[in-house]
Amino acid sequence: MASILRSRAGVRAAAQVRCFSSTPRHAAASAFFTNEPAGPTVKTAIPGPKSKEAISQLDRVFDTRSLNMLVDYQKSTGNYIADLDGNVLLDVYVFAQIASIPVGYNNPALLAATKTTDMASALINRPALGNFPSHNWASILESGLLRVAPKGLDQVFTSTTGSDANETAYKAAFMYYAQRQRGGPDVEFSSEDISSTMVNQAPGSPNYSIMSFTSAFHGRLFGSLSTTRSKAIHKLDIPAFDWPRAPFPQLKYPLDQFAAENAAEEKRCLEEVERLIKEFHNPVTAVVVEPVQSEGGDNHASAAFFQGLREITKRNNVLLIVDEVQTGVGATGKFWAHEHWNLSTPPDIVTFSKKAQAAGYYFGNPALRPNKPYRQFNTWMGDPARALIFRAIIEEIERLDLVKHTAQTGDYLFAGLERLAEKYPGQFNNLRGKGQGTFISWDSPQRDAVLKRGKEVGINIGGCGESAVRLRPMLVFQKHHADILLESLEKIVKS
Amino acid sequence: MASILRSRAGVRAAAQVRCFSSTPRHAAASAFFTNEPAGPTVKTAIPGPKSKEAISQLDRVFDTRSLNMLVDYQKSTGNYIADLDGNVLLDVYVFAQIASIPVGYNNPALLAATKTTDMASALINRPALGNFPSHNWASILESGLLRVAPKGLDQVFTSTTGSDANETAYKAAFMYYAQRQRGGPDVEFSSEDISSTMVNQAPGSPNYSIMSFTSAFHGRLFGSLSTTRSKAIHKLDIPAFDWPRAPFPQLKYPLDQFAAENAAEEKRCLEEVERLIKEFHNPVTAVVVEPVQSEGGDNHASAAFFQGLREITKRNNVLLIVDEVQTGVGATGKFWAHEHWNLSTPPDIVTFSKKAQAAGYYFGNPALRPNKPYRQFNTWMGDPARALIFRAIIEEIERLDLVKHTAQTGDYLFAGLERLAEKYPGQFNNLRGKGQGTFISWDSPQRDAVLKRGKEVGINIGGCGESAVRLRPMLVFQKHHADILLESLEKIVKS
Repeated sequence: MASILRSRAGVRAAAQVRCFSSTPRHAAASAFFTNEPAGPTVKTAIPGPKSKEAISQLDRVFDTRSLNMLVDYQKSTGNYIADLDGNVLLDVYVFAQIASIPVGYNNPALLAATKTTDMASALINRPALGNFPSHNWASILESGLLRVAPKGLDQVFTSTTGSDANETAYKAAFMYYAQRQRGGPDVEFSSEDISSTMVNQAPGSPNYSIMSFTSAFHGRLFGSLSTTRSKAIHKLDIPAFDWPRAPFPQLKYPLDQFAAENAAEEKRCLEEVERLIKEFHNPVTAVVVEPVQSEGGDNHASAAFFQGLREITKRNNVLLIVDEVQTGVGATGKFWAHEHWNLSTPPDIVTFSKKAQAAGYYFGNPALRPNKPYRQFNTWMGDPARALIFRAIIEEIERLDLVKHTAQTGDYLFAGLERLAEKYPGQFNNLRGKGQGTFISWDSPQRDAVLKRGKEVGINIGGCGESAVRLRPMLVFQKHHADILLESLEKIVKS
Repeated sequence: MASILRSRAGVRAAAQVRCFSSTPRHAAASAFFTNEPAGPTVKTAIPGPKSKEAISQLDRVFDTRSLNMLVDYQKSTGNYIADLDGNVLLDVYVFAQIASIPVGYNNPALLAATKTTDMASALINRPALGNFPSHNWASILESGLLRVAPKGLDQVFTSTTGSDANETAYKAAFMYYAQRQRGGPDVEFSSEDISSTMVNQAPGSPNYSIMSFTSAFHGRLFGSLSTTRSKAIHKLDIPAFDWPRAPFPQLKYPLDQFAAENAAEEKRCLEEVERLIKEFHNPVTAVVVEPVQSEGGDNHASAAFFQGLREITKRNNVLLIVDEVQTGVGATGKFWAHEHWNLSTPPDIVTFSKKAQAAGYYFGNPALRPNKPYRQFNTWMGDPARALIFRAIIEEIERLDLVKHTAQTGDYLFAGLERLAEKYPGQFNNLRGKGQGTFISWDSPQRDAVLKRGKEVGINIGGCGESAVRLRPMLVFQKHHADILLESLEKIVKS
């Protein structure tokens, strides 16, 4: 563990740096992490010799073919990720564990949250939350994940991962739709419902569907994978439900130069959404959408598009599920990305995971609780240990005002990238994410080479889709880190 | 937290009681937990007034209709579960959190495991294990969950719950089957595979199936729910795959009196399994089975049945997936329940969760690693914090020799139940689980009344299927607890 975490002095030091500088400079005094290195260190190729040896040991029992870097977490700090060979990289994307580390490695405030009696009990007396919640479960929820619930959504169903957050949300949508078809919550299941469902046939197991969009990513279990449309390799050989896929707008950049064309493209997509809801052969119960399609290539759409989607789903009595697994918890400069849309009525369901470290879905309409107990149920229904970590993350976000901070750092970083794009034509194409915090990406003609070269100069950046470079820094990413990133990117494109 | 957990003296005291008495008596000296109460305390109806108030607070934000008891975990110890109203019950089933607490509430050895640097790092620096495992992940696996891997299975894929352990196992089965159909791991996907899977159609998203049994329970997400056949309420209104269901043997008890009929019943079921493998319209890639069908009513089958199932699956090139989510980790008197079968070749895949506190699947055949990376992948791929807890559980099981202990306590308890069954005819029907540790159950003519009355006399027991009472005590359940349980059951049937 980094030394700051052992010393009380270190904790105090971190607690004192509440404000950050708004001027772009390498300002050590304003650093959130006083023990962060001044910049990356690259000592060996990655993986280096020590890592290679450890990877081959691990590979004997655990598939390592997707391994990106073997990490020494105890030597990682703040925005910097370390390995066994003494390499220390600025962690700007997958980095942060596929966008799932919000407030830095070895954050002292999170460490303090691991030392409580509540945490020890959650770890060793793991409850079946549906049957035997602890007496303080309500207070853990209310002081934690419900305090940041999206506007209008005051209920939660907790789960363990983004995939099962989405799948339990889909189950809620199916039960709600079936209940309305049946004539309300008090109408009993028919004997045909009951006998047919035991052999997986309609009407008990109906051919209902969830609509998703081209290039969407919603998870990799069977229900969520049926809505995932990102890459064939995610889906091949796995049976899938016959559910509809609507086109997601393909916008042209820069947005202000293509306003009319983009508006027409969004209109076309919305018309197709409505047509599919009306005509698809397996009744559509919900539409699921990411505020920014992440795995699928960092595809954005306008607030107007999402407002239109809300109207269409309302008009057709279909639920709108917003998948904030990757976009939630501050990275777009709002706590929830869908706050950018100014909807007149909230989404029906919002799912979360990743940076929350806990997972689940928020909802507001009480009718989305199924009409009987044990319909939406499983053994653990989440993990209170992870709910306690989410609460500590929320407190850290509030203490350091990290959502506003991320909006400002994002604007600063975007401006820097615009300067680079102008200086190096053709290298930073379709730069996108303006006004969306640090949720920034662009298309690169030699994307894979750029990612590889990144590691050599000390930055850990990631790709998505076919040609996009995407940035997913933590919320504690600061302007001096942005400067290092911009300098490194310039070094890469010059070389 | 119970006081023993704060004091080092308490930890030492617990560590000293390594052996347990083999004579049936209320032997305080041999108790695993020195601070356990001598017996249950029932002060109020459950829920009592304080619990009622807390439940209504919780219900505002979290569905409480399946709530069984609001628990004060910090006042719970060993085999005893406490609530806010001063009630302390002997926890013999759901109890133990739907069979998921192995070594007692507030076990000091588990508490010690929460205090390590590794645990703190796992909690605050949660890795994406597929991309960025920690440098000591191999050693955490090898010193923990791989040390107890079923014979012949030396590889693991980690996940977060029983449902996703089963579903990722199913995905492995589908990819393995498709690879053989395609002609081996080096044959590339066709362009038709790639284009069809993006719209969820065959051949890229094939109509393959997983076979399960009547009354099976394998989870509640879309793939696992398609193999679950326990109760309609688990399945209604949720779309399901068209997968086959084979009959699970319905044995008659006592087994020695119905040997010939039971053998014929098992033969009939096996024949139907083989017929379905050969004839079902959606190709069967794997058969999934529980060693004891738990949620479905505690249905047992003989070792010969499972040996036959292994032969049939081998002969037809279909995988055998053994779902040990509820049966694993010692409760049947073997670490893995399928060890009772003495198979000549191991199952292809064994899934685990619950008492392991971590989840995933074991396998041995290297070809069950998909032919390319990122095919079996997700963001977190499990939780190292939970893997560390499983390691501490394994150490505690070994220290106290709890598997052998559970076999012996089970025999003692079963003999006591046989005496009760003889004394109270018609009250303990189809008593089952002989020689299966504490994995014991029976059918009761007034099952729901028995469960309710249990709480009034201080024992927390559970039901399954239509009329079964099932026992799922922890591994630290001792003979003096069995005596209390037997006395309480006698009190209930007499009243």
